[in-house]
Amino acid sequence: MERPDGPSLLYVGVDVGGTNIKTGVVDDQGQSRSLVTLPTHAARGWEAGLADIEDSIHQAILGANTHLDEITAIGLATPGTMDIPAGRLLDPPNLPGWQDIPIRDLVGERLKRPTVLQNDANAAAYGEYWAGAGRQAYSLVFWTLGTGIGCGIIIGDTIVEGEHSHGAECGHIIIEMDGRQLCGTGQYGTLEAYAGAKALLRDCREALDTGRESVLTGWIEAGEELTPLLIARAAEAGDELADGLVMQLARYMGIGTTSLIHTIDPGIILFGGAMTFGRNESPLGRRFLERVQDEVHQRAFPVPSQNVRIDYASLGGNAGFIGAAGCARLKFGPPS
Amino acid sequence: MERPDGPSLLYVGVDVGGTNIKTGVVDDQGQSRSLVTLPTHAARGWEAGLADIEDSIHQAILGANTHLDEITAIGLATPGTMDIPAGRLLDPPNLPGWQDIPIRDLVGERLKRPTVLQNDANAAAYGEYWAGAGRQAYSLVFWTLGTGIGCGIIIGDTIVEGEHSHGAECGHIIIEMDGRQLCGTGQYGTLEAYAGAKALLRDCREALDTGRESVLTGWIEAGEELTPLLIARAAEAGDELADGLVMQLARYMGIGTTSLIHTIDPGIILFGGAMTFGRNESPLGRRFLERVQDEVHQRAFPVPSQNVRIDYASLGGNAGFIGAAGCARLKFGPPS
Repeated sequence: MERPDGPSLLYVGVDVGGTNIKTGVVDDQGQSRSLVTLPTHAARGWEAGLADIEDSIHQAILGANTHLDEITAIGLATPGTMDIPAGRLLDPPNLPGWQDIPIRDLVGERLKRPTVLQNDANAAAYGEYWAGAGRQAYSLVFWTLGTGIGCGIIIGDTIVEGEHSHGAECGHIIIEMDGRQLCGTGQYGTLEAYAGAKALLRDCREALDTGRESVLTGWIEAGEELTPLLIARAAEAGDELADGLVMQLARYMGIGTTSLIHTIDPGIILFGGAMTFGRNESPLGRRFLERVQDEVHQRAFPVPSQNVRIDYASLGGNAGFIGAAGCARLKFGPPS
Repeated sequence: MERPDGPSLLYVGVDVGGTNIKTGVVDDQGQSRSLVTLPTHAARGWEAGLADIEDSIHQAILGANTHLDEITAIGLATPGTMDIPAGRLLDPPNLPGWQDIPIRDLVGERLKRPTVLQNDANAAAYGEYWAGAGRQAYSLVFWTLGTGIGCGIIIGDTIVEGEHSHGAECGHIIIEMDGRQLCGTGQYGTLEAYAGAKALLRDCREALDTGRESVLTGWIEAGEELTPLLIARAAEAGDELADGLVMQLARYMGIGTTSLIHTIDPGIILFGGAMTFGRNESPLGRRFLERVQDEVHQRAFPVPSQNVRIDYASLGGNAGFIGAAGCARLKFGPPS
């Protein structure tokens, strides 16, 4: 018997970051019913972290006015290296001390619910695909711009998680074969080495050091810290150096996006993360996107580059936990 | 009722190339039962081509000692631009005059069998995945080295054909953002511009023009044409210039392969095509592969690069028609 007016199935999504744990109850349509944010305290060790995750789940369930036994399944999104099929953290740089933890089964046993583990960038991509700006698409590439360049790829409900849990690490595709070395790795000329936050700051400092005129010089002398957001503020204020740096970043992302178009040829490409410069709501955000599109149109085959949609993500920092809940639904929800 | 000793389901695969049409009957296990090769005569136009395709199918069925009504479905593999879901050729450069032809339905109506269309590189990749060197893998990247750098990507029976039929055009990923321009396109710094046959020949001619010593100089003076195979012969004979060029090609392919590992993270990566230099049977072929592997190990994340298998394809020029038959089976064969 169908229950057209009955309650929707519910899932819990947990996005464990280096700074915060974001946890929410999400319904079958991808709408979040609650959101709880706790500090991660990674340094206290994984047992304390696990207790915090459990705590956040109970709070989120309470906040959504429901009960644990109404939850169909739980999805966990975590950063860093992991074995996704085994549900195990390996050596996540942002969660020091959480090495080799079978986190999926530990959470599942504590909460007595079916539980899945997914990489955080993949989960965020799935969130946008399921319930965000990628809702209408069959396939999607999702870039997150921040300290690192994160990426997630979805093709028709298949999350490209890779055969060794290293799928969609597209910040590490090569755009300049003998180019800049990424800090602390043997990787040369990767997209992240050009378009990550560190690269932006380095390029900015180098330009300022050569005496380039910029409002940033005065701002820094007045005690402001040089950050990507400060550069964006300067660019919005019409500063030529800062604007050039943001457009250069867009160019690099257009180059990386071209390679993704020639690999995946997705229906939509979305940009999210801290370095999205006000997105469609700001002139700078709109010009960033236009610059990416220009680069793609110049470089990629006409058919895919003219037909792909390139836009900003819509779920912001909630994409991770919503997507984690979506991954739980993919595995334990109703057949699609 | 099961028929354990009964006949296997049969498919026809047709690989339409610029030079030849290769057609065969393939059984449910990916074993070919016949093979017919006819010249393509592309210049005679698509109606003549269609008649040749039909003819080749009848000959292949005859050669396999079976009947048309024993054929479950037909798979067509064609080069160039197409609309795969619509079953339509758009503007294939290697089949001039075959523009905007609904080839899938034309063949299907003539033969009265369910018919699918697939890009030739994708079909060859699926052939290796189904019945070739990729048989044991869950996911695969297949490079074909020749005039162009072809590519096909399979993830768990999903062929990455792209939302606009431009998936896995990985010869066109960028490895040097402001690098060499690919002939006749606006594309700069693509893998093909460095590792395609034309690039190899250009690099060789430039080196010879600067007076580099090489057995090739004498061979060319004696009337040999400079081809990739001639360069391979010189490399096998210990010629330093030729060997360096082949190893440089391997380096470029290692760079492109690194980007694919950081995008797809496949279980296996295979090399096929005319420029595979004797494959595992020749010292040069083995050294080529080792050089690719070295580059990948230097550049890619340890976990995927140490776990991915990198090898030669095993079906040679038959991968296309076998894979086309496999695509027909994917859609019209028994549920997997």
